[in-house]
Amino acid sequence: MKRIDWNALDEGARAAVLQRPVQAVSDALRAGVQAIFDDVATRGDAALREFTAKFDGVTLDDFEVGEDEFARAREQVPANVQAAIAEAASRIEAFHRAGIARPYEVETAPGLLCRRVQRPIPRVGLYVPAGSAPLPSTALMLCIPARLAGCRDVTLCTPPRKDGSADPAVLLAARQAPGVRVFKLGGAQAIAAMAQGTARVPRCDKLFGPGNAWVDEAKRQAAQRPGGIAIDMPAGPSEVLVIADRGANAAFVAADLLSQAEHGPDSQVLLLTDSAALLEAVALEVDAQLARLPRADIARRALEASRLVLVRDIEQAIAISDAYAPEHLILAVREPRAWLERIGNAGSIFLGDWTPEALGDYCSGGNHVLPTGGAARAWSGLSVASFQKAITVQEATDAGIRATGPCAAVLAHAEGLQAHARAVELRLERAA
Amino acid sequence: MKRIDWNALDEGARAAVLQRPVQAVSDALRAGVQAIFDDVATRGDAALREFTAKFDGVTLDDFEVGEDEFARAREQVPANVQAAIAEAASRIEAFHRAGIARPYEVETAPGLLCRRVQRPIPRVGLYVPAGSAPLPSTALMLCIPARLAGCRDVTLCTPPRKDGSADPAVLLAARQAPGVRVFKLGGAQAIAAMAQGTARVPRCDKLFGPGNAWVDEAKRQAAQRPGGIAIDMPAGPSEVLVIADRGANAAFVAADLLSQAEHGPDSQVLLLTDSAALLEAVALEVDAQLARLPRADIARRALEASRLVLVRDIEQAIAISDAYAPEHLILAVREPRAWLERIGNAGSIFLGDWTPEALGDYCSGGNHVLPTGGAARAWSGLSVASFQKAITVQEATDAGIRATGPCAAVLAHAEGLQAHARAVELRLERAA
Repeated sequence: MKRIDWNALDEGARAAVLQRPVQAVSDALRAGVQAIFDDVATRGDAALREFTAKFDGVTLDDFEVGEDEFARAREQVPANVQAAIAEAASRIEAFHRAGIARPYEVETAPGLLCRRVQRPIPRVGLYVPAGSAPLPSTALMLCIPARLAGCRDVTLCTPPRKDGSADPAVLLAARQAPGVRVFKLGGAQAIAAMAQGTARVPRCDKLFGPGNAWVDEAKRQAAQRPGGIAIDMPAGPSEVLVIADRGANAAFVAADLLSQAEHGPDSQVLLLTDSAALLEAVALEVDAQLARLPRADIARRALEASRLVLVRDIEQAIAISDAYAPEHLILAVREPRAWLERIGNAGSIFLGDWTPEALGDYCSGGNHVLPTGGAARAWSGLSVASFQKAITVQEATDAGIRATGPCAAVLAHAEGLQAHARAVELRLERAA
Repeated sequence: MKRIDWNALDEGARAAVLQRPVQAVSDALRAGVQAIFDDVATRGDAALREFTAKFDGVTLDDFEVGEDEFARAREQVPANVQAAIAEAASRIEAFHRAGIARPYEVETAPGLLCRRVQRPIPRVGLYVPAGSAPLPSTALMLCIPARLAGCRDVTLCTPPRKDGSADPAVLLAARQAPGVRVFKLGGAQAIAAMAQGTARVPRCDKLFGPGNAWVDEAKRQAAQRPGGIAIDMPAGPSEVLVIADRGANAAFVAADLLSQAEHGPDSQVLLLTDSAALLEAVALEVDAQLARLPRADIARRALEASRLVLVRDIEQAIAISDAYAPEHLILAVREPRAWLERIGNAGSIFLGDWTPEALGDYCSGGNHVLPTGGAARAWSGLSVASFQKAITVQEATDAGIRATGPCAAVLAHAEGLQAHARAVELRLERAA
């Protein structure tokens, strides 16, 4: 792991430390995804069947998971995993429910009532990758807020396994959105299906969830099309930034760095500490723990690009973190709450020694679909609001138009929009 | 204006009525914007100076509006317009302030506290078009929520006039964000500057505001770039859909249709009514009012594509409106509140005969930057939340990890992520 003394670096070298590798989309990938969109638009389910045979190695007559497969899933998932899914779901629900936005109204002038109300996005499309392992936790993070938002049509795509079935734990988790329709479709073809609709797969208004490079590019293309659909957020490799002081537990910190590193070779891992002793202790612990990990190869590759950074003090660490805007930020410092107010940019924050990031991945209650790649400057992690939109409602009485119409008319004239002014003035004449 | 009897149409013809013209981006426009991005990235302010000379016909040594120009603006704007700006600002502020999200917290398990807190997006870039007329109202709609959100750096670009000055009313409105920096830059070059930063213009994290085709395409390209920035919402021509019953005032309805039509020849105008008599009365009123409008040419072109649709009843009108998902929806019906709950998709709703859409454009208190082109299915109009993001904060005690760690570990093992499990189990061993 690369050791860096922040205060020995000039400005350019500091910027390089915080530079994420550019996730370049190759022309071949872009064209490949475009071809999949076009083919799915033209040939619909027949194209989906062919892509599934080609990419997932299985030929499916019907992509949709039926009641029998849901029933089998309940028999196949071990009881302790079922219990853990239920326990995690209850905390995710409790936290997400408490954050639901409420309508509000203000009488902004006598006789003029302004309201803001929430409405579900009618048709949402969720993607749950399988990749190196199935991710029932991601199904929970997508299905629970979709249900709480009241979305009418919830469509979930997840890649089929070689035997043509869906991962049973993912199916159990998906049922957190009771009416969910699950399709065994993966990759760009799943996104193309949900973005455009086919005879079998409903067209969606917004797409959610993580994926591989093909899925990410497909979501990007879906969002770009004219009259296109919304997507949850830009995609990128997962990241953790840990700020630790000399009181931190080196074994815990090392374990947190490794739990990020095992996601993939492109995972971003950063430690900022004001203690040279802790820095070395963490490096030793990482090596020791790495030896015992099944996914050590993946983690080792991610750690090659990781950085252990010595800083002057925690204040400096916070400033560096804010410039980086990490997806996950762990504050393994004494009095972490005192520093919280200073954090401007992060996806999700973990306070103190007893809060591993893994808790947030599964069952703290917070969502684990979070902004990466610096997007935490402008984006939020998923919440019920991600599955809703707000509508402004205005209602004036004749008194209301008398109170506010003249202001509107003056501004309309100032902007040279006489028909706007006229729509107000006509009413002012009648309301007088 | 085209008259349509909805119930005489087959499904295909109905879909055609609700079809918006595709806003095709030509290859030339796309390449032109890309070239501007590249040139601004390479040559910075020198490129901005050249584009401004070329597109706005004025050579500026300094794009930034200084204190002297702000002071002159205050002398130049008529007193009644200044008063109207202040009055509109106070209502916009009151309504937006009431909608600010508050942090909340839930103890999701004994010893585990989950919080969601808001943080301003640090650097926001606002675009206020000049086009056919300057739009101080748009400056209000962008600057007031940016201030309420607490954004640190607020940058506003607006095209220079031929004499090199900015529109004074726009400058007055911009001061609603006290520390705002205003640059006299228009078109794609303004967006390229705020998206990438130059020596003079700060790089921004999110871009807001309407614009012409060049601005829209530039925002789209800014959002697509790797490590790119956020944008407020996809762009499109402005739209109104009016639902009127036989009790509606034909002159008011016609005035509302015209106030939409005068925005531009591509404005979308739809009337749905269950009264053939009202439909004809509105058509007559439109012709009569049109003759008196200064922007009659623009409005006439928009009206050529407009549709007056006879429907069976208001319930059917609501269903059609929901399928269309209009930016502005006027409910010129008796008992409009009773219908409100039935509306699923709209940007902003205006209830009853006394609430012209123009009121929402200027001074009801609601924001006039709204989703168009059907985006109202998934997007909201601007609010303070558009200028903020939310961060989840988790804090476990040793009791908290004991209560929730086992659940996380089971799920981590189920997903084959042993390092995740290990980060939890290590703590469980020490917390025991």
